[in-house]
Amino acid sequence: MKAKRRIVVALGGNALGNTPEAQKKLVRKTAETIADLVEAGHELVIAHGNGPQVGMINLAMDMASKSLAKTPEMPFPECGAMSQGYIGYHLQNAIRESLMNRGIDKPVVSLVTQVVVDPNDPAFKAPSKPIGAFYTKVEAAQMVSDRGFVMKEDAGRGYRRVVASPQPLDVVEKETVKALLALGQLVITVGGGGIPVYREGNALVGIDAVIDKDFASEKIAELVDADELIILTAVEKVAIGFGTPEEKWLDKMSVDEAQTYIEAGYFAAGSMLPKVRAAMRFAASAADRRSLITALEKAKEGIEGDTGTVVYK
Amino acid sequence: MKAKRRIVVALGGNALGNTPEAQKKLVRKTAETIADLVEAGHELVIAHGNGPQVGMINLAMDMASKSLAKTPEMPFPECGAMSQGYIGYHLQNAIRESLMNRGIDKPVVSLVTQVVVDPNDPAFKAPSKPIGAFYTKVEAAQMVSDRGFVMKEDAGRGYRRVVASPQPLDVVEKETVKALLALGQLVITVGGGGIPVYREGNALVGIDAVIDKDFASEKIAELVDADELIILTAVEKVAIGFGTPEEKWLDKMSVDEAQTYIEAGYFAAGSMLPKVRAAMRFAASAADRRSLITALEKAKEGIEGDTGTVVYK
Repeated sequence: MKAKRRIVVALGGNALGNTPEAQKKLVRKTAETIADLVEAGHELVIAHGNGPQVGMINLAMDMASKSLAKTPEMPFPECGAMSQGYIGYHLQNAIRESLMNRGIDKPVVSLVTQVVVDPNDPAFKAPSKPIGAFYTKVEAAQMVSDRGFVMKEDAGRGYRRVVASPQPLDVVEKETVKALLALGQLVITVGGGGIPVYREGNALVGIDAVIDKDFASEKIAELVDADELIILTAVEKVAIGFGTPEEKWLDKMSVDEAQTYIEAGYFAAGSMLPKVRAAMRFAASAADRRSLITALEKAKEGIEGDTGTVVYK
Repeated sequence: MKAKRRIVVALGGNALGNTPEAQKKLVRKTAETIADLVEAGHELVIAHGNGPQVGMINLAMDMASKSLAKTPEMPFPECGAMSQGYIGYHLQNAIRESLMNRGIDKPVVSLVTQVVVDPNDPAFKAPSKPIGAFYTKVEAAQMVSDRGFVMKEDAGRGYRRVVASPQPLDVVEKETVKALLALGQLVITVGGGGIPVYREGNALVGIDAVIDKDFASEKIAELVDADELIILTAVEKVAIGFGTPEEKWLDKMSVDEAQTYIEAGYFAAGSMLPKVRAAMRFAASAADRRSLITALEKAKEGIEGDTGTVVYK
């Protein structure tokens, strides 16, 4: 394995924050992790989630549009674009500072990034990702009839809109990511899984959806021909049989083993499952590619082979 | 003058829109103008304002934070970052399509962009730019004492917060802009004048302010060594003595003439004055640099020398 690798790092919710103040604090820690990897000589692309942030923005825009402020209703792709600006600003600001503190003067920049999906993706037939505000049953029924939204009752807390989570097919701004990477610049891209768009002739049309950030990270990792995809999360390693007598923390698993574990129902659907699937997809995409799932604060050790769960072909 | 020039285009409010739907429509027209200039062989950097958009975002965030949604209060630089994502998405999406329709496959991307200001800029002593929601006298007094805001009565409509409009000193992400420009990519940057930050050691600290987008455009034009700064607005040419018997539409003016007109009070403070000042600053910054002020839909003719007001040294 090469000592200096091209790595896509996917940051999870624990790398960001639920309020601007909390996020500014958390990204400082995240930035140190990133700076460790840059200092070790790796070429990085940073991807990140946006669940709580786009939820907050969407909720605020919804509430304000119904308030005295009468601000316009904001479509979901636009809310995603806002979250890329908001999170990207905090990340690039903090990472730049961490690098400068180590004497590394490397440009760091966030790109507004669109990700192409297929409007016929089966996910659109079964929307599952809750977004935005809670509504009463009456309000929810109104939104179904007025705006064609799919609304679902959410654990007794009211009704929420659900949107589809389609697969990413392409990253529109990939040539910019590649070019900056080749020049040694540090790029933040596919924030929140990217702004979901579909092709209509030469047009790219925004569509209400949430692309899983692990799958979007995997896609850009393939497109930039990365050596490694690192998915940073809250746990140091992937476990099977968690909380049972057969509990086992994995140092590594092959794609085939991972598939067996998935079929045995070992990974939770909204949580570890997409991470494992994204890791498998990348490891299987070409020879010499591997994925690593570990905790944010263990990234440096993990990349040196000392912890985390490696997924290999 | 070179036939193929490096040009920074500053888009005004009329190039964008007050709602997402209006903006999507307007940017299609804007995109055609940009595509005309690309097709003519020029190298472009696109800058844009964000007054109505960041006002809307700031207002929505303010209202939502006081509503049942209880979303967090959002600082002004973060609202600016959101506006860069929101406007950048619409612009890059529409410009890409216009180029594709002409058979031009050129990457178009918006960069989250921070612009450095001096915290001792005299503008901070005299905040003048109104932002966000209207408040009652009592609410305003509360905000002054709780949060140190400067609040001003706004034409009988209530009290609004006012922030400073300091001068831009540097564009943090300039190396990325330069690199992409050199590769023939089309960059959208310094949206809304940029996210205002000041230096504190190695850190860049966000500060509540609005950097004039014409001055920020001028700054990036200098930094990328542009040949021309084009400020697109609602009028085809700059006028002096508008609406008086001595009304005169200008084909060109030297920096010295412009200074004389300014001293005679010909240009409105919040409107044509900053455009003329930015145009003068760029024209005076080096030999062979000139500025052009014209209407969005006249950009192509203007650049060929057929209309608009040229500002030269």
